[in-house]
Amino acid sequence: MQYFVIGAGIWGSVIAERIASQMNEKVLVVERRPHIGGNCHSSIDEKSGVECHRYGSHIFHTSLPEVWKYINQFTSFTNYHHTVLTKHAGRVYSLPINLHTINDFYGKSLSPDEAKAFIAQEIAKEGLGSEPKNLEEQAISRIGRPLYEAFIRDYTRKQWEREPTELPAAIMKRLPVRFSYNTDYFSDTWQGIPRDGYAQLFKKLLDHPNITVQTNTAYEDIRDTIPSDALVCYTGLPDALFGYSLGELTWRSLRFEWETHDVQDFQGTTVMNYADSDVAFTRIHEFKHYHPERAKVYASKATVICKEYPKTWQRGDEAYYPVNDERNTALYEAYTKLAAKNPNVILGGRLGAYRYWDMDKAIENALHVFETKIKR
Amino acid sequence: MQYFVIGAGIWGSVIAERIASQMNEKVLVVERRPHIGGNCHSSIDEKSGVECHRYGSHIFHTSLPEVWKYINQFTSFTNYHHTVLTKHAGRVYSLPINLHTINDFYGKSLSPDEAKAFIAQEIAKEGLGSEPKNLEEQAISRIGRPLYEAFIRDYTRKQWEREPTELPAAIMKRLPVRFSYNTDYFSDTWQGIPRDGYAQLFKKLLDHPNITVQTNTAYEDIRDTIPSDALVCYTGLPDALFGYSLGELTWRSLRFEWETHDVQDFQGTTVMNYADSDVAFTRIHEFKHYHPERAKVYASKATVICKEYPKTWQRGDEAYYPVNDERNTALYEAYTKLAAKNPNVILGGRLGAYRYWDMDKAIENALHVFETKIKR
Repeated sequence: MQYFVIGAGIWGSVIAERIASQMNEKVLVVERRPHIGGNCHSSIDEKSGVECHRYGSHIFHTSLPEVWKYINQFTSFTNYHHTVLTKHAGRVYSLPINLHTINDFYGKSLSPDEAKAFIAQEIAKEGLGSEPKNLEEQAISRIGRPLYEAFIRDYTRKQWEREPTELPAAIMKRLPVRFSYNTDYFSDTWQGIPRDGYAQLFKKLLDHPNITVQTNTAYEDIRDTIPSDALVCYTGLPDALFGYSLGELTWRSLRFEWETHDVQDFQGTTVMNYADSDVAFTRIHEFKHYHPERAKVYASKATVICKEYPKTWQRGDEAYYPVNDERNTALYEAYTKLAAKNPNVILGGRLGAYRYWDMDKAIENALHVFETKIKR
Repeated sequence: MQYFVIGAGIWGSVIAERIASQMNEKVLVVERRPHIGGNCHSSIDEKSGVECHRYGSHIFHTSLPEVWKYINQFTSFTNYHHTVLTKHAGRVYSLPINLHTINDFYGKSLSPDEAKAFIAQEIAKEGLGSEPKNLEEQAISRIGRPLYEAFIRDYTRKQWEREPTELPAAIMKRLPVRFSYNTDYFSDTWQGIPRDGYAQLFKKLLDHPNITVQTNTAYEDIRDTIPSDALVCYTGLPDALFGYSLGELTWRSLRFEWETHDVQDFQGTTVMNYADSDVAFTRIHEFKHYHPERAKVYASKATVICKEYPKTWQRGDEAYYPVNDERNTALYEAYTKLAAKNPNVILGGRLGAYRYWDMDKAIENALHVFETKIKR
């Protein structure tokens, strides 16, 4: 049996590592982009020395012991804890909406129970029915109108390029609201940034004599050379695999604008959201704050920031987020049925599975797929 | 040789553990209080199930690899990261003073460099000389008058029971001010709370067949039974050891008022400072927030809080903080000279060394003293 992995993102890299180390089989990894690591890719900005996450901020966090144990074979992690801030109407607030946000926004110092009662009043004022009809109603039924209009409305418009009243309530189902001052963005057992960066992590994952990596190589470039009995683990667009024969899946994409500034600290934090419509981007990442322990780079008077603009995906764009609505779910199902006709093809990764996965979920799934479908 | 450790706090417990495990010698630990653990002592509140730090909040944090490795033999740590908030004039602010505090306080959204320039202006307004004459001038020369009056002046009065103009500038030398949104109270490599609590950690430290622990036993109770060639590691008050013959060392003490409340969450965070003079306590601790991972206890509608009141130490009070001014430094020196006359007595621990030590520094010192003065 020969093994091919299409795409050197986290899912594909873990699959390749397992095949190489656990089955002692050779595996060819091909990657369309000029680098490994998929959207986790990082590289050092030459001028500032800052390690930049080239496809937006990536923070590793997990509560899965087997994933934590697995990934720690290839890197150690810093003690970084992620927090997010947002600018609204010339002030800075803590996200997700928590007791600090509520008290700052309303100019109060309510206790947790007082804040719950206060927000319940704000919600009651709106007199909404029990079944929210859209994202706006869903959000208002959780936090009331003033907080919705400040922190959710315009940001959602920017993120989805649609009116919140036209978006399904389901998107906001898990809008987190905390009545404590806990500002940790993640509540997982383990959290951090790979100490030597993501680029180094992927280099180690794929550093095995059984693994050959070809970057700048698309699936189409090698498709005809793959023997019919080889196993292909495909992490690209599912619809592209079948020539879009059943139609095109919908994705959300992002555009990044990079800037270097000659200041030690541009914004004082890793991620600053922009809640209002006066700027078109949704957030600014400042990557040096992911590695305060790199003291020399951190202290230097140069920093790299990147403005993130959401955009509707078009063929040729990088696909970031699946749009798991009814149409797309059905279409993806149809493609998986096509794929199932060829037992030598496994669809995987965030793209192949048409799922929004955090890094740990991608690793968990890769380990599971390896154990149940590949290992023998 | 026989080994005696006076006081079962962190320094004494580490010394005892080392003697027992590394020298395979028997050691008697006597502890005046009814419990081991010194000021790190924790116990479970029966009604709420909340583990309470009985002498105020203790957060373990260190950047010392040998200390981290040592203590992890006896406990694992949670992922807890400490932050501190403060109430002032009916609003809640983040501490130590950082960009969020500054922007909230002044109603702005300054960038790091803008905030630096702004605070520099605030300082310049005061026209202070280059040598601050007291704590007030020291603080104003770092953050300007408005922030000083809001966050430092009244809190310092409560903490020291003296006017900031009468306190030495040195106390405030390291007043931390951050021009970023980093709200981590500690910046050490490792941080957390012992997963099974401090009580359990000390139980494990002292759980060795060579170690005998006698609680409710003062040094005076066993003094006459100690052979003259025994080694005594003494962690009590240095002046008490010599009958206060050269005079009394000065300490700061604390008084705690405990309350149980029938609410899930009283204040939304572990430590809330009270910056203003309208309340006499300096802070309220709410201990359930140290263990959010204890989901059942965390969710239950009962919580334990404790109000912390600073007080001047008097004989019989618990001694918390040394007052390392000129008089006391000289007096302590004199007592160490007395102690040096008896090579079989080692003064150690926070009290015996008359030093303000974090837990990791106490462990580091105990390991060092063991290696250099005890091990043979």
